[in-house]
Amino acid sequence: MSDVEVTGGDLVLVVIVAVVALAALALGFMFRREVLAAPTGTEKMMTIARAVEEGAGAYLGRQFRTLAVFAAVAFVVLFALPADDATVRIGRSIFFLLGAGFSATVGYLGMSLAVRANVRVAAAAEAAGREPAMKIGFRTGATVGMLTVGLGLLGASVVVIIFQDEAPHVLEGFGFGAALLAMFMRVGGGIFTKAADVGADLVGKVEQNIPEDDPRNAATIADNVGDNVGDCAGMAADLFESYAVTLVAALILGSQALGDKGLVFPLIVPAIGALTAVIGIYLCRPRAGENGLRTINRAFYISAAVGAVGSALAAFLYLPGEWSDLAGASGVAADISPRLLAAGAVVIGVVLAAAILALTGYFTGTEHRPVKDVGLTSLTGAATVILSGLSVGFESAVYTAIVIGAAVFGAALLAGGTTALALFAVSLAGCGLLTTVGVIVAMDTFGPVSDNAQGIAEMSGEVGEAGAQILTELDAVGNTTKAITKGIAIATAVLAASALFASYTQSAFDAFADATGDTEDAILGGFLVFDAKLLVGALLGASVVFLFSGLAINAVGRAAGAVVYEVRRQFREIPGIMEGTGRPEYGRVVDIVTRDSLRELATPGILAILAPVAVGFGLGIGPLAGFLAGAIATGTLMAVFLANSGGAWDNAKKLVEDGHHGGKGSDAHAATVIGDTVGDPFKDTAGPAINPLLKVMNLVSLLIVAAIVNLSYGKHESDWLRILIAVAAALGIAVAVYISKRRPVAIGSSDGEPDAVTSVGDPVSPV
Amino acid sequence: MSDVEVTGGDLVLVVIVAVVALAALALGFMFRREVLAAPTGTEKMMTIARAVEEGAGAYLGRQFRTLAVFAAVAFVVLFALPADDATVRIGRSIFFLLGAGFSATVGYLGMSLAVRANVRVAAAAEAAGREPAMKIGFRTGATVGMLTVGLGLLGASVVVIIFQDEAPHVLEGFGFGAALLAMFMRVGGGIFTKAADVGADLVGKVEQNIPEDDPRNAATIADNVGDNVGDCAGMAADLFESYAVTLVAALILGSQALGDKGLVFPLIVPAIGALTAVIGIYLCRPRAGENGLRTINRAFYISAAVGAVGSALAAFLYLPGEWSDLAGASGVAADISPRLLAAGAVVIGVVLAAAILALTGYFTGTEHRPVKDVGLTSLTGAATVILSGLSVGFESAVYTAIVIGAAVFGAALLAGGTTALALFAVSLAGCGLLTTVGVIVAMDTFGPVSDNAQGIAEMSGEVGEAGAQILTELDAVGNTTKAITKGIAIATAVLAASALFASYTQSAFDAFADATGDTEDAILGGFLVFDAKLLVGALLGASVVFLFSGLAINAVGRAAGAVVYEVRRQFREIPGIMEGTGRPEYGRVVDIVTRDSLRELATPGILAILAPVAVGFGLGIGPLAGFLAGAIATGTLMAVFLANSGGAWDNAKKLVEDGHHGGKGSDAHAATVIGDTVGDPFKDTAGPAINPLLKVMNLVSLLIVAAIVNLSYGKHESDWLRILIAVAAALGIAVAVYISKRRPVAIGSSDGEPDAVTSVGDPVSPV
Repeated sequence: MSDVEVTGGDLVLVVIVAVVALAALALGFMFRREVLAAPTGTEKMMTIARAVEEGAGAYLGRQFRTLAVFAAVAFVVLFALPADDATVRIGRSIFFLLGAGFSATVGYLGMSLAVRANVRVAAAAEAAGREPAMKIGFRTGATVGMLTVGLGLLGASVVVIIFQDEAPHVLEGFGFGAALLAMFMRVGGGIFTKAADVGADLVGKVEQNIPEDDPRNAATIADNVGDNVGDCAGMAADLFESYAVTLVAALILGSQALGDKGLVFPLIVPAIGALTAVIGIYLCRPRAGENGLRTINRAFYISAAVGAVGSALAAFLYLPGEWSDLAGASGVAADISPRLLAAGAVVIGVVLAAAILALTGYFTGTEHRPVKDVGLTSLTGAATVILSGLSVGFESAVYTAIVIGAAVFGAALLAGGTTALALFAVSLAGCGLLTTVGVIVAMDTFGPVSDNAQGIAEMSGEVGEAGAQILTELDAVGNTTKAITKGIAIATAVLAASALFASYTQSAFDAFADATGDTEDAILGGFLVFDAKLLVGALLGASVVFLFSGLAINAVGRAAGAVVYEVRRQFREIPGIMEGTGRPEYGRVVDIVTRDSLRELATPGILAILAPVAVGFGLGIGPLAGFLAGAIATGTLMAVFLANSGGAWDNAKKLVEDGHHGGKGSDAHAATVIGDTVGDPFKDTAGPAINPLLKVMNLVSLLIVAAIVNLSYGKHESDWLRILIAVAAALGIAVAVYISKRRPVAIGSSDGEPDAVTSVGDPVSPV
Repeated sequence: MSDVEVTGGDLVLVVIVAVVALAALALGFMFRREVLAAPTGTEKMMTIARAVEEGAGAYLGRQFRTLAVFAAVAFVVLFALPADDATVRIGRSIFFLLGAGFSATVGYLGMSLAVRANVRVAAAAEAAGREPAMKIGFRTGATVGMLTVGLGLLGASVVVIIFQDEAPHVLEGFGFGAALLAMFMRVGGGIFTKAADVGADLVGKVEQNIPEDDPRNAATIADNVGDNVGDCAGMAADLFESYAVTLVAALILGSQALGDKGLVFPLIVPAIGALTAVIGIYLCRPRAGENGLRTINRAFYISAAVGAVGSALAAFLYLPGEWSDLAGASGVAADISPRLLAAGAVVIGVVLAAAILALTGYFTGTEHRPVKDVGLTSLTGAATVILSGLSVGFESAVYTAIVIGAAVFGAALLAGGTTALALFAVSLAGCGLLTTVGVIVAMDTFGPVSDNAQGIAEMSGEVGEAGAQILTELDAVGNTTKAITKGIAIATAVLAASALFASYTQSAFDAFADATGDTEDAILGGFLVFDAKLLVGALLGASVVFLFSGLAINAVGRAAGAVVYEVRRQFREIPGIMEGTGRPEYGRVVDIVTRDSLRELATPGILAILAPVAVGFGLGIGPLAGFLAGAIATGTLMAVFLANSGGAWDNAKKLVEDGHHGGKGSDAHAATVIGDTVGDPFKDTAGPAINPLLKVMNLVSLLIVAAIVNLSYGKHESDWLRILIAVAAALGIAVAVYISKRRPVAIGSSDGEPDAVTSVGDPVSPV
């Protein structure tokens, strides 16, 4: 890699990219001011909004303090891991912190704007009507979108400018920081939002028969806080991470495949995406009487098309027509010219985004057959609702996986037989996806903002029927955009993970050659897919995805149980809540969920970090490759399955609430409420967290591979130390799982008081 | 392989194995006579039993006629596929039919005995008490166990005797026949049993509030027929297939790794298993007052220990102490002697069986924490029951996968670095597992027999309270044994599939060398796990598992919907059913389920057969290897997840029915009934069918690999023909999926009459 240098015109281009990044950030702040300039509604609405804001702020503050410990440990370990030289060692650690900091910043700023935007959307719906309300929602999303794109591009381009040929290794640190923080924010925020939501629904809707967001329910504020810390902060960090890691992967592989131009072109494509995102955002101008989803889709498709054309043009202008003209490239070549290859790969990525948008819309939209079918099964009860929703999830996951697989295969096919080039093409398809991220984030943020606006309207009771109707419509649109974002996010995960996976193998070979003096051919046998040990690795990779999902869902169940018992207690002990004369203690529920979420996020996080360590040091670098492949394959399916079955249940409920199959209050409605409750942790906790999980595991593997090779073959060869590390990691996971398993399921234990169930003679023990 | 010959003492040993197989069959018929000699109960009980027998017989008859078409097509295709010579070509096709025939025979005989045993168990519970009733159940299982072991050993040993060095290729046909039939019987029977069960429960328990197996419910006979065709016939065929394919895999790899002795030793181990199974069966003597599960566990552990010691002894007596003494072996060697390697691998297999027994018992047994926790969550409603059950499934799948992975890794580690030897060791571990199959089948058959006995007792109303209590206890024991069997079956699937996978690669290399004259090194690169196309293969392999599961669950939903509407119609139109003066038309429900199950089994079956064809011909042999690895990894997790979450829900319901959390009729009970209903197609349709699915896909790949290589590299190189085949296969899958998707969900369409829902103004269309 030492022959790669970004100078002259290339350097100027990268500086321009950095300037584009800064411009995107500036634009973001402009949008932010636009949002904050909108009127804030009545005093009562502001009181509620402030309570939500405080709760969300308090949660994020405590979460960042908790995560600081993880980040500090990771910083030290990262510093200690083998590196090419001191520059890489220091740069990698510092940019790890920067990546984590950026991830946190995007999440924090997104959330802090959203909590202020919510009340403004509610006020606008009441006072100014549908279009102004929708516009505030879009502008909030646009701010977060610009922030994501700006910080991602800025970080990557600065690394390339400063570190030149060593940029790839430093970028590993940057990407790891972003992914690690995002994973924790996704898991923690996901547990928070769904524990509060499920808990509030179970007592409110099911037991007390009061509507959603009813102020008599002590969990309502927590529920709204959850929307902000989970769907807003967590999601924003997650998409930032997707953006950053995809970019990192493309830059690493680009420098290997194309030399210096490979360090520049992957920056140009998303820079074009930043510009087209602005077009998309301005196109998101609601027309009177038009369905909100239609507006969003139009904006997406137009900006995606512009992005595809722009990127293809850039490929033809920037890249040479012949492979031999690529300075610094190590003799790679495909049957088609570099221009065509790059343009083709980027277009594949854009088309993939559009395909996922269409697929997800089909499987989770109320107007298509799958959700209608799920709604229909509500006539035969909750069990058939669950089964049909699971089927929709299974099947939509398959089609999404096939589409993603086709994109990967198509990109690889463009590159012909060369593995390095094929993987670079895959990562370029990832960059193509990135051109749509700005709009995607804008679309997604729209979801929680309108959800929360509806909550504030409902709680304050100060939005009339017309306003409420507008907010309900916006909320439904938000549901579908949320599902689409998850599909896009997992697609970026697969493309980025495939690419990182390749860097992993390359690093393994490099380290092996360094350590033993042999060529990479000597360990190639260890990477053959039919090797029994490698199959075990794949089995373990698939296992981690299942365990992670199970842990996340379980965590929600436990935390929701705590909410249920606290809300029940308040109904029991505080006089006059149901009559509206007593006021529930909202803050206590927020506290309980905060504490539980932070406690629960540790186990899945530890699993993600330590599993590759245990497999890599314990079984070897070949099985670790199998592990990553197994995790990617299973993780893709699982992530989409969880997201789409959850989305289908949610919208099947909306279908019934719109008056089908008996409407609100019918048995069919009760059945779909159960489906929606099951879907909550699927779609908002476990499912979306698999995306950063895959990236974290890939990046951990990439970072430790040199150490594994050193202990396995190198001059520090030491089987006992290797096994010791593996055993310690495995034990770490086991202890974390054991501790979280010891917590009681669905019983409010957090406040230390005896609760309704265990105090009634512990009915379980005599079995 | 041409230097392998089984002569002299080895031939005598194989003949002895064949004699042991015949002895096992004879013993099976002896047990059968014992069962049939028991008294048959009252005339009313016999009437019911005869109705069940007729329904089951009619279903299996129609199923075999349907499957004959598939078998005939497969026979022709098999005949046309490339083969080493005419002997292999003819032998492979003929033994394909024999394997399929044996699979069908085991299923049919098992079912036909079970339907007669059921009534005898019920009669014994009433007239003679617990021990005699239990004994009849065990003896029924013992018959099926002996049949499984006897036919499996007989088929394999006869192939070795006749075909000698060409036995491995002929065995591919034998295994494929067994796996294909078993898969269809698992899927078809699984859809039948659960459609009838779910349909009966939804109308009977939920809507009409009448108990299970109430004669007023028109679906009761169909429900009991289902137990026999699904849990009995399907399961027996499945375990026979597991037995046969594991044996086939070990023989194929054995001849490659150890030469002639490798074709004999894998037969000796299960022959010893046949003997120890007899010990186990005679040990299954219920002691007065002892829990039935305890009796079964004791029998299992003792016979497993005897089998392990016996097999280890056989290794030391039969195999040489030095690798150089192995005639015909191609220079393979491990650090430990062949004796130790073989003994160690077999013992690993036996220990694996015991570990799975313990794990499954823990996760699905009512006396352990997981099921208790699921039961506890029933206090907060159905949604939390579903979520906690899913978590149990996810987590138990992980531990089971880790245990299986440890066994594979351990066996591979014994063999050191040689891949061929490592994979033979893995397949020997599979043979170790086989030593326990006789007892396992006996245990498993116990489940449906006692379930049905309870059904007959309930329907006839002629079994008193004491007798009913006994049958309820036996049924609960049966539930756990069923879950254990599924765990063992999936473990054999992983071991066999890993081994078959290796044969696939070897065949690919052989075919490649034949076609091009190059050595295998020339295509080794295509099997590297980090290749982008191979990752796509893995993604598609994981996808097939998800799609298959989704299709199977959906099929149950659709067929159950048909049952619901038919039973409702009968309640509505036949006067006096609820009062007991009118008699429901049981036969119509049986007919509907029969027709629907046969129609529904085609799509998953076509998927299993054509998916490897599409991937292999379309993407190449490397991606097909990735496909198989992805399918094995994801399939293992998915199979255990589905089986154990289903088992946990079932037993959580039993827990509540035993009086916990409010007991029968409480809200908690209703919540667990929903959980159980969701679990039904999980544990009895989709989950168990994944086991034969994995084997079918591996065997299809093994059979087509030479053809793929020929079209890709050989003298018949033809990209257009290759792509044409792939596209045709993909289209075949797409059409099959499309046709099954076009059927309405959960609406009784089979009888062509307008049903309750669609006639009420089609409430879905105006959305």
